[in-house]
Amino acid sequence: MVNHYSSKLVEDTVTELSKLPGIGKRTAMRLALHLLKQEVSYSERLGNSIIKMRNNIQFCKLCHNISDQEVCEICNNPRRDPKLICVVEDIRDVMAIENTGQFQGLYHVLGGLISPMDGVGPSNLTIEQLTSRIKRENVEEIILALSATVEGDTTNFYIFKQLKGISLKISTIARGIAIGDEIEFADEITLGRSIIGRLPYETGI
Amino acid sequence: MVNHYSSKLVEDTVTELSKLPGIGKRTAMRLALHLLKQEVSYSERLGNSIIKMRNNIQFCKLCHNISDQEVCEICNNPRRDPKLICVVEDIRDVMAIENTGQFQGLYHVLGGLISPMDGVGPSNLTIEQLTSRIKRENVEEIILALSATVEGDTTNFYIFKQLKGISLKISTIARGIAIGDEIEFADEITLGRSIIGRLPYETGI
Repeated sequence: MVNHYSSKLVEDTVTELSKLPGIGKRTAMRLALHLLKQEVSYSERLGNSIIKMRNNIQFCKLCHNISDQEVCEICNNPRRDPKLICVVEDIRDVMAIENTGQFQGLYHVLGGLISPMDGVGPSNLTIEQLTSRIKRENVEEIILALSATVEGDTTNFYIFKQLKGISLKISTIARGIAIGDEIEFADEITLGRSIIGRLPYETGI
Repeated sequence: MVNHYSSKLVEDTVTELSKLPGIGKRTAMRLALHLLKQEVSYSERLGNSIIKMRNNIQFCKLCHNISDQEVCEICNNPRRDPKLICVVEDIRDVMAIENTGQFQGLYHVLGGLISPMDGVGPSNLTIEQLTSRIKRENVEEIILALSATVEGDTTNFYIFKQLKGISLKISTIARGIAIGDEIEFADEITLGRSIIGRLPYETGI
């Protein structure tokens, strides 16, 4: 489909919007026309929030969660237990678990899961930072809260192997979540219970 | 769901993105995280294209199509027939008809359809501008290319009544398009044929 936008301004916006995941040319056009019907101030707030976020975002140097400071507010909170670390795939999982109100420890955000098919190996994740953090901070327990998928299981097992020889309790969240489900789409009650009912990690070998 | 974003920057972006039609909080979060994984330059291009578009967009003073100048490039094109005007609901319909390559006249963008249920009356549309344009420019024919819906039919009939007494050929695009369908989702061949096979307008009274 050749497009006749009759406006370079609209064409540019549609081009940029349609680079976003799940947004095609037609949806991008619909969004652009919606923006044109709104106040100028809305487009300015939207555009500037995107630019400001991307330019100023930081990642917590301890847990790799997104943060507006060097150390995130969870790691900075003295009421949280620094001896208990919950290992998650990404930032959305931190939010999902925080929403349950069932976890008082700290997090460690891996930034993904081991997936050779997608070209993601252990070195692309923050696993090395996790092991040195565990040794440095004398962590007593880690909870592996990764998705119940092949990639999640592979990553669990790799981390487990890396931590061999360190005196540490390793648990996984209870699989109240159906096999194949993603952590971030679990309901809050199920996810909360799965944290309370966490089990010692077993490799099956 | 209470949200723990751990970053005001991300929260602001999610809030603004989720004001867009069809984008909920979860999708907005997915988009924000996607932006964080891309180059800074992409967020700048996206944000600036939105702000620039909204601040600088103009509407053609003749046909009310979006334009980067006072008069759009279609109205400005000397090879197009100014005696033939195609009346459409919105800008997306102009694009859809331009893509067929079957129409060499000019357009008139109404900016909507008459819909009392949605509070849209004739005065909210550019119908008055259409009638004065037809008189001023000695237009010979108009093609009503509105969606085959109740609102489209109502608008057709209203325009037809407004033009009574003016010597003018009024046609509608052939209804190769199924009743109830929207113009913008028609395929190019069907839409192109419906322009060639346009019929004299009949009110049925």
